[in-house]
Amino acid sequence: MTDSTTAASPTLVVVGGVAGGASAVTRARRMNEHATIIMFEKDEHVSFANCGLPYHVGGEIAERESLFVARPALFADRFNIDVRTRHEVVDIDRSRREVTVLNHTTGEHFRQAYDKLILAPGAAPIVPPLAGISASNVFSVRNVTDTDRINAFMTRAQPGRAVVVGAGYIGLEMMEQLHSRGVAVTLVELQPQVLPLMDPELAHMLEEEIAAHDIDLRLGDGISALVSAEGLATGVVLGSGETIDTDMVILGIGVRPSVQLAEQAGLSLGDSGGIHVNAHGQTDDPDIYAVGDACEYTFGPTGKQMRVALAGPANRAGRLAGEHAVTGSSAPVPRAWGTAIVRVFGLAAGMVGLTMSMARRSGLDARCCVVRANHHVGYYPGAQPVTLKLVYEAGTGRILGAQAVGREGIDKRIDVIATAMHFGATVHDLTALDLAYAPSFGAAKDPVHMAGFVAANDLAGTAVIMPIDSDLDGYQVLDVRSRDEVSGSALYGAPHAINIPLHELRERIAELDSAQPTVVSCASGARSYVATRILMQRGFNTVYNLSGGTLLRAHAISSISAGYSGPRPAPAPIPAPPVTGRRGD
Amino acid sequence: MTDSTTAASPTLVVVGGVAGGASAVTRARRMNEHATIIMFEKDEHVSFANCGLPYHVGGEIAERESLFVARPALFADRFNIDVRTRHEVVDIDRSRREVTVLNHTTGEHFRQAYDKLILAPGAAPIVPPLAGISASNVFSVRNVTDTDRINAFMTRAQPGRAVVVGAGYIGLEMMEQLHSRGVAVTLVELQPQVLPLMDPELAHMLEEEIAAHDIDLRLGDGISALVSAEGLATGVVLGSGETIDTDMVILGIGVRPSVQLAEQAGLSLGDSGGIHVNAHGQTDDPDIYAVGDACEYTFGPTGKQMRVALAGPANRAGRLAGEHAVTGSSAPVPRAWGTAIVRVFGLAAGMVGLTMSMARRSGLDARCCVVRANHHVGYYPGAQPVTLKLVYEAGTGRILGAQAVGREGIDKRIDVIATAMHFGATVHDLTALDLAYAPSFGAAKDPVHMAGFVAANDLAGTAVIMPIDSDLDGYQVLDVRSRDEVSGSALYGAPHAINIPLHELRERIAELDSAQPTVVSCASGARSYVATRILMQRGFNTVYNLSGGTLLRAHAISSISAGYSGPRPAPAPIPAPPVTGRRGD
Repeated sequence: MTDSTTAASPTLVVVGGVAGGASAVTRARRMNEHATIIMFEKDEHVSFANCGLPYHVGGEIAERESLFVARPALFADRFNIDVRTRHEVVDIDRSRREVTVLNHTTGEHFRQAYDKLILAPGAAPIVPPLAGISASNVFSVRNVTDTDRINAFMTRAQPGRAVVVGAGYIGLEMMEQLHSRGVAVTLVELQPQVLPLMDPELAHMLEEEIAAHDIDLRLGDGISALVSAEGLATGVVLGSGETIDTDMVILGIGVRPSVQLAEQAGLSLGDSGGIHVNAHGQTDDPDIYAVGDACEYTFGPTGKQMRVALAGPANRAGRLAGEHAVTGSSAPVPRAWGTAIVRVFGLAAGMVGLTMSMARRSGLDARCCVVRANHHVGYYPGAQPVTLKLVYEAGTGRILGAQAVGREGIDKRIDVIATAMHFGATVHDLTALDLAYAPSFGAAKDPVHMAGFVAANDLAGTAVIMPIDSDLDGYQVLDVRSRDEVSGSALYGAPHAINIPLHELRERIAELDSAQPTVVSCASGARSYVATRILMQRGFNTVYNLSGGTLLRAHAISSISAGYSGPRPAPAPIPAPPVTGRRGD
Repeated sequence: MTDSTTAASPTLVVVGGVAGGASAVTRARRMNEHATIIMFEKDEHVSFANCGLPYHVGGEIAERESLFVARPALFADRFNIDVRTRHEVVDIDRSRREVTVLNHTTGEHFRQAYDKLILAPGAAPIVPPLAGISASNVFSVRNVTDTDRINAFMTRAQPGRAVVVGAGYIGLEMMEQLHSRGVAVTLVELQPQVLPLMDPELAHMLEEEIAAHDIDLRLGDGISALVSAEGLATGVVLGSGETIDTDMVILGIGVRPSVQLAEQAGLSLGDSGGIHVNAHGQTDDPDIYAVGDACEYTFGPTGKQMRVALAGPANRAGRLAGEHAVTGSSAPVPRAWGTAIVRVFGLAAGMVGLTMSMARRSGLDARCCVVRANHHVGYYPGAQPVTLKLVYEAGTGRILGAQAVGREGIDKRIDVIATAMHFGATVHDLTALDLAYAPSFGAAKDPVHMAGFVAANDLAGTAVIMPIDSDLDGYQVLDVRSRDEVSGSALYGAPHAINIPLHELRERIAELDSAQPTVVSCASGARSYVATRILMQRGFNTVYNLSGGTLLRAHAISSISAGYSGPRPAPAPIPAPPVTGRRGD
């Protein structure tokens, strides 16, 4: 016991009792048995499973009680922590190191001294300022009180129709769960795709799945007004002018960080609007920490400060800030990589780091490839394709991000790549990973390896990638699929494609013009890779492999998506071949 | 085309046409369109799925044809590769750069010149030299000819009983698959546990699963003789003297690398008995490469050369050696980490790197912890526990290995840790990983994070681990489970344990002797960690947390495993607390 008495038994006050706050107080207690620890939560409940809320509405999580990870009594009995719900911290007096607290049950205000203060207030759902938006059948989905309201309404009113506004994580999950309760759902999204944090060609795979479940999908459209009658919303007026009649409305537009308290206290915010913190989660005031959705993290792919409103970073930062607050030291808060996953009916969509769209906007010299490979060996029954997109830096091969869509094994591939990215991996590292293989679990050449191979070949100039959404006009296009495959589904946007099945290519190579820049395609990009290599070594100067093939190209640039027939983003610019020398030819 | 003519169109000869050989020739072709490429395979088939063989016997892989990943015609048509099956390379003349080939169909020998030669001969099943071992109902499981023989025998003879010898990967898979065909299986293993590459307490979890499927499990016993009648094996005599009557015998004892050809040619072998190669897979003769089960790899955790008879490393090394042979350069062959997984009925068992037993034998100053946490959040239905053991270096925290057993999500955790190990990760890295989380896919605090937390706490002295198989005599033992839990199942090997439920500990702490070295236990190690922290900060000098808790301790040192009641290995030595200073107390 070498610590001074003050440091050894500080008073720690925590504002907010969900992911970040609850992680902070429990770690603080384990690291300092003698501290006084008080956690204030303005709402009814602490330490609840907010990622589980949609599944309680849908009934998959049947028991409301199971949403509570830890009750106030557990905090008291196991951790000797004083938890006060319905207590809102409304002011921070930094000079006196006191907070002012409003007890919502009694209406009283009181002051509480602190040695260390951790702000974990979270974020609040965005509610557009429309007339009628506060109707009793318009809901956000942020806490158990919200799901209590939704469930009570559904039991009482037995709604047959719902409009879900916003096709991000919460919107997609609520769409799925309301559908499973038999509600006819209209999903409205302002962007021309669902899941705007994903590149369009992968998001479009989700749209097919959504349309197959009879969801009325309205992309590229927003809500401009509500129609109300007798205090209830009865319709949603879209930006396009159409009115959708409905029995209830779910808002899944996004969240806004709860930074008022920090701002009032004169603590700085960062460029992304979250509370600015250092590597230990400390704000400008070293006695005040901030964690969770209200603060900024160092974003791994760019090194810039940014908000990341996800549970994982909040838990990690809370745990470390709690330790630092009561011991004076801890490991630094790790960088956040934006790793996330969402289930959409039978599909999963996972992502980490930057999409190609984000990478371009960030000004990075980014390249990308897409592979489609089975989640376990094809010869073992039940193999499901994983569509995996890798985004990487042109010069260094550093991985900037990955996205994957499929029915099985999506979480594993995203977690493997997220782990590699933690270490600053390049695409070459992916080719070298030693992953677990047995027929029912994977493949000796996993989709992760395949993505690494394709990207490494691209960077080496061995087989340069043509992005799947590229404009193929002006290129000689070679389609190396079989005649049956070609007659079954043509290569989108390339009516001028020449079909020479791969096994005939060496004999029929004279039918092609070796002087013309050439793009090669097949169903997925695998056979066209072999063909690319043949052409490159037989006198063709400029050859590209269309990464992702016919299957993904339909998703990338055709208008198959239900609910959207407007303009798509312009095709991607054609990449210059890498400056590194070509190998092997 | 700057290469010289010789280099640009070399003749590449490859010996062996399965994982390593097939990967070598296809990459070689893609990298060099002008090379002459010939692949000799002594057996009937090339490029077959040998990891799938047990599942074809069991019928899960119904079509024999689907075992063939690529047929010779595909090699010819797509890759312009000359594949010769039933052609055995019997001699290498290094001075002339020629091989002598025996055509098993014609019986003729001929010579074939090479510029580069790749040896991928694989390994041969170990067949013990017992009388009757060549009976027609005694089988190895190495290639399609073997499974053809097994299936033909089973169709003809309708065996009701089988003895499987060896409880490694193949033995366990054959046990499962024969059981699913209705055969009563006896599994015989010389070691006192199944899967000798795993630490015993995790292997014992598999033994419970095996016993629950009515397999007759004989551990710590080997076969000493066969009983034969009319050319068939009718019984297996065990080392213990007992005879097991049977209708067929499967040998799954292991494999021996096929190094004769390399030895004859004067190429050196390494200490582990495999062909010695450099970072590009080159043997002593730079024109001769070796890949796959016959060669050695650099083993990641130790940096030593060692054989790793797994498909992943063979595929990777083959691909790179094929490239190097025809272009003169390639990335180095990556280190192998021994990552593997096997399904045993409803359980999966995965591993990477060193077990604790191996680490001790390697002379490393290793420590370990075990966590038991759900594969996804417990509040979402269907959560299954993952038992995850982490082995790490005492001084540095470098991860040496991991093992996991459970019904769901085992492959993902092993792959994440294998990926981290590729980068030389420490246990601290695991705590910082940003993994994908949604309720049906994981948890914000994943089992991988939990293992990292526990190990980091151990190394920091925050909560020092007592290994699960330790002798608890002489320690004050505190069991912090509820009274009901304790009366339901006592802590094995600790009749002197004192039960104080965690939430009563602060009040009742005077019942314990703070001067005595104390071990704390609960069901899994989570509550006991909290209790450990309380004791350490309230005057107890030496406190250990029993990692894995009551549940795993039963597996670790009791004799619950079916089929074995002999002695267990001695309890592990008690680790000294780490030399790093204690934090937070």
